[in-house]
Amino acid sequence: MITDARAVRPYTLAQTTFNSLLMKFAIIIIGDEILLGQVTDTNSGEIARALAPLGWQTGEIVTVADDADAIREAVERALARYPLVITTGGLGPTKDDITKHTLMGVFGGELVFDPSVLENVEEIFAKRGLKINELTRTQAMVPTSCRVIQNRYGTAPVMWFETADREHVLVSMPGVPFETAGMLRHGVTDEIARRFHPDITILHTTFLITGITESALAERLAEVESALDPTLHLAYLPTPGLIRLRVDGKDSDAGRIARLHAEACEAVEHTVGELIISRHDATPEQLLLDALRSRGLKLATAESCTGGNIAHRITLIAGASDVFNGSVVSYANEVKTGVLGVDPADIEQYGAVSESVVRQMAEGAAARLGADCAVATSGIAGPGGGSADKPVGTVWIAAHTPKGTVARLLHCPGNRARVIDRASTEALLLLLKSLQNV
Amino acid sequence: MITDARAVRPYTLAQTTFNSLLMKFAIIIIGDEILLGQVTDTNSGEIARALAPLGWQTGEIVTVADDADAIREAVERALARYPLVITTGGLGPTKDDITKHTLMGVFGGELVFDPSVLENVEEIFAKRGLKINELTRTQAMVPTSCRVIQNRYGTAPVMWFETADREHVLVSMPGVPFETAGMLRHGVTDEIARRFHPDITILHTTFLITGITESALAERLAEVESALDPTLHLAYLPTPGLIRLRVDGKDSDAGRIARLHAEACEAVEHTVGELIISRHDATPEQLLLDALRSRGLKLATAESCTGGNIAHRITLIAGASDVFNGSVVSYANEVKTGVLGVDPADIEQYGAVSESVVRQMAEGAAARLGADCAVATSGIAGPGGGSADKPVGTVWIAAHTPKGTVARLLHCPGNRARVIDRASTEALLLLLKSLQNV
Repeated sequence: MITDARAVRPYTLAQTTFNSLLMKFAIIIIGDEILLGQVTDTNSGEIARALAPLGWQTGEIVTVADDADAIREAVERALARYPLVITTGGLGPTKDDITKHTLMGVFGGELVFDPSVLENVEEIFAKRGLKINELTRTQAMVPTSCRVIQNRYGTAPVMWFETADREHVLVSMPGVPFETAGMLRHGVTDEIARRFHPDITILHTTFLITGITESALAERLAEVESALDPTLHLAYLPTPGLIRLRVDGKDSDAGRIARLHAEACEAVEHTVGELIISRHDATPEQLLLDALRSRGLKLATAESCTGGNIAHRITLIAGASDVFNGSVVSYANEVKTGVLGVDPADIEQYGAVSESVVRQMAEGAAARLGADCAVATSGIAGPGGGSADKPVGTVWIAAHTPKGTVARLLHCPGNRARVIDRASTEALLLLLKSLQNV
Repeated sequence: MITDARAVRPYTLAQTTFNSLLMKFAIIIIGDEILLGQVTDTNSGEIARALAPLGWQTGEIVTVADDADAIREAVERALARYPLVITTGGLGPTKDDITKHTLMGVFGGELVFDPSVLENVEEIFAKRGLKINELTRTQAMVPTSCRVIQNRYGTAPVMWFETADREHVLVSMPGVPFETAGMLRHGVTDEIARRFHPDITILHTTFLITGITESALAERLAEVESALDPTLHLAYLPTPGLIRLRVDGKDSDAGRIARLHAEACEAVEHTVGELIISRHDATPEQLLLDALRSRGLKLATAESCTGGNIAHRITLIAGASDVFNGSVVSYANEVKTGVLGVDPADIEQYGAVSESVVRQMAEGAAARLGADCAVATSGIAGPGGGSADKPVGTVWIAAHTPKGTVARLLHCPGNRARVIDRASTEALLLLLKSLQNV
């Protein structure tokens, strides 16, 4: 019971104590294409998010060219300041192995053929029905100074280096975002946890919370937070429309931290349970697809101001076709009336951005596209089109389920892209909440 | 005439000579939210792309926390190595002016009230119908050691610092991507050009080229390239489906470089004219909207595998509603037949991913959504759903205009997101090309 646990625990400044366990690390992104602005780096964010629950904080991110001097300088500087350095990129078969040679300059060793890497590459190529070529074979040449972690998502192996004094670790990862993300989840994060905290059990649970601001949530959880054992910590990660609340715990006593962590999660549930929409990390669209799939319901969308963004976010998820029938993007009023069946008199009387119209859009989409559920949006994304009555950012959203239709008025801040994104998220969340009673 | 120009010009290694004019600069991104992985940095790419045509090459990108020591160290290190440093972020009214104080630590000066900044902020707030608050007023406190460039897109002023020896410049820009992008285009890039090359005229023209690989394009332009004057340079910027070819020129003789640059552009036109779809930089969706608007034509889309992404990309552009009627995302076959009017017998006979179906989708979208033109997509985005006949990445696209319908078969590489993105770009480009004869 949570009250018992509180009674025996001293009230301490939990966060301060926990933060003293925080360790900083550096990320080095290698790639001309990022310096040129041709590609946006998303790997550093993936790495930061993957290591945060283990108590690692990103000290700095440095992006350098595919150039031996630049790589070497960045690596030596980072190793001198941080116990852990993660690099991505500079490993493709066309990169002339600059990164490998540069890392050998720092860690020693020589390039040797590693048959296990070639085997892994052959397996991946066979699955994709591709033939291996000579360039790809060079991926199997790895420095003797590193330990290989097989890359299950691509051909460049993950290489784990340690300094001679074993005080500093460098993990060299591939630059392809899909491979980096996959290998973080399946191998690298766990190895880092084992290497730096071999005797410490690390636990984390993510709650997705909606319908409250970050500061209001923190206020409601103030008592829970101040009662936390020093081995526990609450992390707030706000995004528009949705707050990720992470309950982190780490301790050398596995049994103790499991009990304390479960109690802390229970306390969060007890205090803000009605605001929680998920007990694991996921996007609103993933949660919605899961909720619909488990209920055997089909989805349609009717989008005016969001212009297809909701459908796009849903269909980025593999397997969406199980649940998603389709969408009508009704930018022109004639599409709202002609395809979705909105009453032209209501558009005339209330305007296209109105509760009446957005409800008819949701119901029309479900009916016309043969779905059980639907979301709809109608609003003013800007920069033009606003009025004193309905300024830019005014958006009506609706969610339809077999139990009925609900609508909500939003005032979304920011420019056109932010209004579209926020309205899309809120519409997905509105249907997700409506499904709780279906 | 280009042949005359060639005759009098020596054949030199144009690129090497031009590159010797290249100068390197550093970008410092300030922001805890980026180190935490909550926000993806897009400012560094904007800056790199904006300065490249002026001959600036990004030497490194460093991301640091909203922390005085971290900012100061990164700034001093960058200033010691580069003549130009651009920082973004750390300037919001809630950031306690850490960045301003840190920059005063480096450049000297003290915070004073600048009435012109307050005036600018008041103007921006008035336009948005907002009231100014005390926190926002602090934006008007600026170091005496900097020169202010008024921010036309937000409240934090752009600050221009120079070292005492006038050898190094630091430009501090706001972190909001929309403000950074706007101020680069309207003020900052020009000031940098004037400051570092006051007597040099810099010219650049971007051609958008499609239907050819980068290496094949370079081969066709080999003769043009080798004949270039050392003051000229061709830059290839490939993206999936589209190559940006930039003709850069810079020289102290304004008349001479204008003539040579025009001749080089003419030579490119003469050699690969049939592949050029634009003579200025823009996205395919911007080009398409412009082409439709100038012809008074309306657009619809019918999307299966792209799932609304084409509509989303179009509606991200302000003013799209002039041209864009709407879209039907027909994920389920019932939507293809019921809403778009595709013949069920053709789906049965040829499959949903077929030329016959995608043509009917395009024509159906135009007819049902009251548009003159339409694009349609039907394919297998993966990872599931592929077969030996139609592997993942197989996509049929179609473009419909008043002159008729054309269709094309694509084989898109990569994962689900890349297939969706590539198919969207190709569909937009197919309609754009079809419009050339309308």
